[in-house]
Amino acid sequence: MPILGQNQYGKAECRVLKVTRDGTTHHLKDLNVSVALSGDMEEVHLSGSNSRVLTTDATKNTVFAFAKERGIASAEAFGVHLARHFVVSQQAVRTARIRLEEYTWERIETPGEGRHSFVRTNQETRTAQVTFDGSAWQVISGLKDLVVLNTTDSEFHGYVKDRYTTLPETHDRILATQVHARWRHARFDDTVRSPDWDGSYRATRDHLLTAFADTYSYSLQQTLFEMGSRVVDHRPEIDEIRLSLPNKHHFLADLEPFGLTNDNEVYFAADRPYGLIEATVLREGAEPAIPVDLTNLP
Amino acid sequence: MPILGQNQYGKAECRVLKVTRDGTTHHLKDLNVSVALSGDMEEVHLSGSNSRVLTTDATKNTVFAFAKERGIASAEAFGVHLARHFVVSQQAVRTARIRLEEYTWERIETPGEGRHSFVRTNQETRTAQVTFDGSAWQVISGLKDLVVLNTTDSEFHGYVKDRYTTLPETHDRILATQVHARWRHARFDDTVRSPDWDGSYRATRDHLLTAFADTYSYSLQQTLFEMGSRVVDHRPEIDEIRLSLPNKHHFLADLEPFGLTNDNEVYFAADRPYGLIEATVLREGAEPAIPVDLTNLP
Amino acid sequence: MPILGQNQYGKAECRVLKVTRDGTTHHLKDLNVSVALSGDMEEVHLSGSNSRVLTTDATKNTVFAFAKERGIASAEAFGVHLARHFVVSQQAVRTARIRLEEYTWERIETPGEGRHSFVRTNQETRTAQVTFDGSAWQVISGLKDLVVLNTTDSEFHGYVKDRYTTLPETHDRILATQVHARWRHARFDDTVRSPDWDGSYRATRDHLLTAFADTYSYSLQQTLFEMGSRVVDHRPEIDEIRLSLPNKHHFLADLEPFGLTNDNEVYFAADRPYGLIEATVLREGAEPAIPVDLTNLP
Amino acid sequence: MPILGQNQYGKAECRVLKVTRDGTTHHLKDLNVSVALSGDMEEVHLSGSNSRVLTTDATKNTVFAFAKERGIASAEAFGVHLARHFVVSQQAVRTARIRLEEYTWERIETPGEGRHSFVRTNQETRTAQVTFDGSAWQVISGLKDLVVLNTTDSEFHGYVKDRYTTLPETHDRILATQVHARWRHARFDDTVRSPDWDGSYRATRDHLLTAFADTYSYSLQQTLFEMGSRVVDHRPEIDEIRLSLPNKHHFLADLEPFGLTNDNEVYFAADRPYGLIEATVLREGAEPAIPVDLTNLP
Repeated sequence: MPILGQNQYGKAECRVLKVTRDGTTHHLKDLNVSVALSGDMEEVHLSGSNSRVLTTDATKNTVFAFAKERGIASAEAFGVHLARHFVVSQQAVRTARIRLEEYTWERIETPGEGRHSFVRTNQETRTAQVTFDGSAWQVISGLKDLVVLNTTDSEFHGYVKDRYTTLPETHDRILATQVHARWRHARFDDTVRSPDWDGSYRATRDHLLTAFADTYSYSLQQTLFEMGSRVVDHRPEIDEIRLSLPNKHHFLADLEPFGLTNDNEVYFAADRPYGLIEATVLREGAEPAIPVDLTNLP
Repeated sequence: MPILGQNQYGKAECRVLKVTRDGTTHHLKDLNVSVALSGDMEEVHLSGSNSRVLTTDATKNTVFAFAKERGIASAEAFGVHLARHFVVSQQAVRTARIRLEEYTWERIETPGEGRHSFVRTNQETRTAQVTFDGSAWQVISGLKDLVVLNTTDSEFHGYVKDRYTTLPETHDRILATQVHARWRHARFDDTVRSPDWDGSYRATRDHLLTAFADTYSYSLQQTLFEMGSRVVDHRPEIDEIRLSLPNKHHFLADLEPFGLTNDNEVYFAADRPYGLIEATVLREGAEPAIPVDLTNLP
Repeated sequence: MPILGQNQYGKAECRVLKVTRDGTTHHLKDLNVSVALSGDMEEVHLSGSNSRVLTTDATKNTVFAFAKERGIASAEAFGVHLARHFVVSQQAVRTARIRLEEYTWERIETPGEGRHSFVRTNQETRTAQVTFDGSAWQVISGLKDLVVLNTTDSEFHGYVKDRYTTLPETHDRILATQVHARWRHARFDDTVRSPDWDGSYRATRDHLLTAFADTYSYSLQQTLFEMGSRVVDHRPEIDEIRLSLPNKHHFLADLEPFGLTNDNEVYFAADRPYGLIEATVLREGAEPAIPVDLTNLP
Repeated sequence: MPILGQNQYGKAECRVLKVTRDGTTHHLKDLNVSVALSGDMEEVHLSGSNSRVLTTDATKNTVFAFAKERGIASAEAFGVHLARHFVVSQQAVRTARIRLEEYTWERIETPGEGRHSFVRTNQETRTAQVTFDGSAWQVISGLKDLVVLNTTDSEFHGYVKDRYTTLPETHDRILATQVHARWRHARFDDTVRSPDWDGSYRATRDHLLTAFADTYSYSLQQTLFEMGSRVVDHRPEIDEIRLSLPNKHHFLADLEPFGLTNDNEVYFAADRPYGLIEATVLREGAEPAIPVDLTNLP
């Protein structure tokens, strides 16, 4: 007799744009919201009875209605509103997990007085995940697809040489990666004053960028740990960070056959395969809670 | 003082094609192999010392060398060879996890005597994940991107109606999904005779397809549970299956404004948002071990 | 004073699924339809006056309404209905171009009596483009993403050696490509009996596959020309074919450093860069009319 | 007897990164280069003889070697070097067409003295296409994936109402698009002083952005024409521009069922289908030369 294990359901990828009009100055919030609910849902799996099922369509409607009713102060704050709503209002729902992606826009500057024109920045995608089980909150913020590169201050040598090792050691290489990071906020309690989610995001992003740039690197693992440590050291509101860093290899083009010297000038940017370095960095005493394999990288 | 938590590294997406030549009849295996190693790796994170680090480049070389030395009997068998090798040969490596995607090809039939021409089938991607920690093995097989659709025998009604519910009930709808499934093999022991991985895969895939087709559905959750149960019931080698089923909505096109009746004939295939239904089905007594969010769906 | 040149507009990517019910046996047509209209449209560009503009929304509605009113006998036949409608019914529209992609499904075989369950085949995408200017028709059929591979019967040598040539000659290599083909039908006249579009498609696809498989190749250009010639020679209804064939390189893995011989057994499937071979093959006397760069390959 | 028509070949998507080191201040150029050669190539198609064929591998090598030998002053200038080289050095090559994509990076600001850390901006991709036939040059610059949005100053009404028109008129809507533009430079002669390609690009991009923002729009066609006209009016070096503008629909979410008023605040960002508006704008007297369908939009 097969048994039902962990299960969840909801509407994924609700693309909501919220415009706030302050006279002729307009503001945008552009989110992709995914709802996952779980709880007392045995019956619908076993018999198909939907008597305890809030439709995924209604969860989608709630996203759009809440954009109006509650506004979107930040991805995290919006997720908090939604997660609480589903758990509090639906008896069968024990846990709600809201995932959000945020796309950012900057103004197109024009001489006119209206301020309602925007261009998407595209640089990275901000992410958030808010989970609520009726008593405890978990908020994980993050970003993905932030591509960074150092043209020097990266070495790689002293590694194990087994039968299958052919890589030559190097004392000056390009180090490039596409940062995928998630960090968990400590002690969020819905009854206390709301954290400054946007300020926390900007500061954390800056620490990741500057730690990547500042670190004289002997391995991407070392750079990763430095990036994570910088965040944990400087941001008391963050207890844990998980980084997934593909090593975007840039190989020196071999120009010798053409009588040319390639003095670290011309590189081939490779696609696959790529190194993939992943680790969690924790505040001392913190329990790890960010899942290990939450990226879409193989 | 920040602490290092779970960490792993390796080469991702090694694209290896193996040709086996049996006279003029050739055979293909086409894999995408990702290696992740973990173990005694504190030092490289803290100081950048690579003295215990097998390079990701060497792990890539090993994939290609093993394709020659061991052959590729199946994705799972190849993963077993690789996982064992890294754990056994590298003192610092405690656990190796090999992920594999397999692309399938069928022959192009021609009157000539050579049998060396192929066309990619593209239907689904077979997946496998093999993990070894020096004593215990875990093998999770699976598939993704298998798109199925029933034009009838699907109803949806009797659900909760809250303030945000507007969806009309239906007694005949299209049910379509893109199957992403992972199933865990019980009791694989490297010293016993190797399982028939390919036979197990084909049988499991068939159960998923026929359970989807056979089930008169009152909810996608019910269909999901039926698919999972069918596998657990019929395949004694499988203890657990995790299914992630996006509800690929097909909405009836509204033709009334044009004086036309749409008698379940013309549908709009929507992209986003989509329902996302996920659950684990277990053999009684089995402990769940497949991670909950291992898809790249938001 | 800037001048308006060629212009066109319409709704792109209308995803329509049509179900035909023959008792308990159901049939599917699954299309992605893009409409582009052009004609007497100066005014809307210069002043924004929409008085001659049929909305793109109405062109989308027409796609869904016609699926009901005319049915979908084939991608081409459906495109003919749509193109004629827009040109005949809208005074300002001089030319209509309908592009269609078709996704194919096969039945899931079950013991039950209903025949309403399907699985997407995914192998290639069938394409069609129908253009009508009020008097002349042009119908271009095609396919894309058909991936084929020969494990032998491919050589490459005797080429020019300039200063930048380092490629070693080879007398046995893998030849693989992702076929993107478009072929133009001769003399389609809306008043004559409709061609057997589906039969023509199947036969042409078979010629492409078997020509690829049969040809002992000294260059991908030669294989391409043989594929195109086979179609023009055997299909009198086709006057011209354009093929775009990326050379999906499979490089022999270098196993020598590990003391292994790679006797054309283990290959690395590369992503980028890739050779890109494109050409038109014409019936003698035919005028070329298929645009040269209509693929989305760089 | 089938005839060979237009044909071309070369290596596509060579990913080259060039680092220039000015002391501790480093500079990057990051390109994706695709070479297409055509000329006296009948023989290789008919018999497979490669005696006039420069290998695509050599064209790739040339890209990397020229990055060293000639440097990359701009995408266009690099394309000019390559196109000339292939036509001048290879007797059989009559025409060379080089396509380039450029990815842009900005500095990560750090207190240290080294200036060698970068983050990818990702905003748009700059494109260039240089064609040379031994005597005449054609240079087409461009950009793609620049996403812009106005929250107001867009109306849409007064259009044709046919049987299939259901769209309500609107006097205040969101107008959003993903700009794909290509513009052709007049009179480039290799012997004259090289144009300021980068300055021309920046100015043209600014005109596109500000024209989009400034235009009070009654149709996307009108906005398109204004964008094109702005460029032709202000940039004497540009004779022609082709714009392809998908109408990224943002539909007002229907909040009435929930007793809420949606006063142009909450929108659903739709994926498919989308309007697609395309047109060429020309300087008076200029002959159009940019192909009509050079985007990868259906």
